[in-house]
Amino acid sequence: MAPKQKHRQPIINSAVTLFRRYGYSATGLNDIVQDSYAPKGSVYHYFPEGKAAIAAAAVEEAGNRVCATLEELAANATTTADMLAAHAGLLAGWMKKSGFRDGCPMTTVLLELAPDDRGVASAGKAAYARRKQILVTKLMADGFDEDQAAGLASLCTSALQGALIEARVQRNGKPLQIAAEQLRVLLKLQLPGKDTQGRA
Amino acid sequence: MAPKQKHRQPIINSAVTLFRRYGYSATGLNDIVQDSYAPKGSVYHYFPEGKAAIAAAAVEEAGNRVCATLEELAANATTTADMLAAHAGLLAGWMKKSGFRDGCPMTTVLLELAPDDRGVASAGKAAYARRKQILVTKLMADGFDEDQAAGLASLCTSALQGALIEARVQRNGKPLQIAAEQLRVLLKLQLPGKDTQGRA
Repeated sequence: MAPKQKHRQPIINSAVTLFRRYGYSATGLNDIVQDSYAPKGSVYHYFPEGKAAIAAAAVEEAGNRVCATLEELAANATTTADMLAAHAGLLAGWMKKSGFRDGCPMTTVLLELAPDDRGVASAGKAAYARRKQILVTKLMADGFDEDQAAGLASLCTSALQGALIEARVQRNGKPLQIAAEQLRVLLKLQLPGKDTQGRA
Repeated sequence: MAPKQKHRQPIINSAVTLFRRYGYSATGLNDIVQDSYAPKGSVYHYFPEGKAAIAAAAVEEAGNRVCATLEELAANATTTADMLAAHAGLLAGWMKKSGFRDGCPMTTVLLELAPDDRGVASAGKAAYARRKQILVTKLMADGFDEDQAAGLASLCTSALQGALIEARVQRNGKPLQIAAEQLRVLLKLQLPGKDTQGRA
């Protein structure tokens, strides 16, 4: 098994890239094999249940990446509003760099499979939970109580996810920027009595 | 041509339903023919350019439906916040009724095709523009100026679109409800000096 182990991650990485660009159904196992330079046998070795199992692993990997980005942004930003603005900027930059072909690494797969595939739905739920928890922690550091933070974390996640879709259609990062700006206003207005000028 | 004309709309309606449930790539022309009861020849007659042209027509149709819903909600709601709450409630109800299989009628297709297919991207842009214009008009009736209304309309659209995706993954309308509640707070807080108790 040892000599094959090295191919598991490249297979997942290629799946993330291809699913994000073309969606799940339009990506064949052969495309993943070709993109990852993995021997075809290793795909069946690691994912004997087939393409849906690769999709679940890809959603998990995409969730890990989003959360790693958010953890880093949270550590470097003073407030949640700054963190969201930085995230929107990053996403817009990545989109532009890819000719607006790379969207959210998991949205398309989730939409194609989530209602019917348990593994994908469960990986998606776990990714949402982790992503929102990072925001809740940051929002509580801003001074929000846990209930407020939970509601705001959900809205912030929805808003950036929706804006990313529109950015892809418009071939323009503006919807992401607007979402971050509007969320900054919301966060600032919701924290009354604090010195939140342009920050919270 | 007259006897065939009657099949165009059923073909588009079936495409909207199937693309929304399964995505573009996973839906074959034969699935559309079967679902619409249209003779196969009529699909080629109306859409000689093939499936991508059906997708563009489906995105246009889906945009028309969303806008018709929004127009009706705008006419019946006192404020934009009430309108968004009603829209979130409708979406959550439709999702539940379909076993969380029916998502946004155009998101999956837009994600699969928009960066590379001009017809689909252009239908998507037109739908976004019309959808946001309805919100801008309603927001200006609330008392927002045009710039504020444009930013808020963009955020509201992103937030509900993102929440709809999460609702599908969670098999639960809660993210939609949270988005509408949080947007109500934002709209209320942004309209200072008005009697906006729980309304704007």
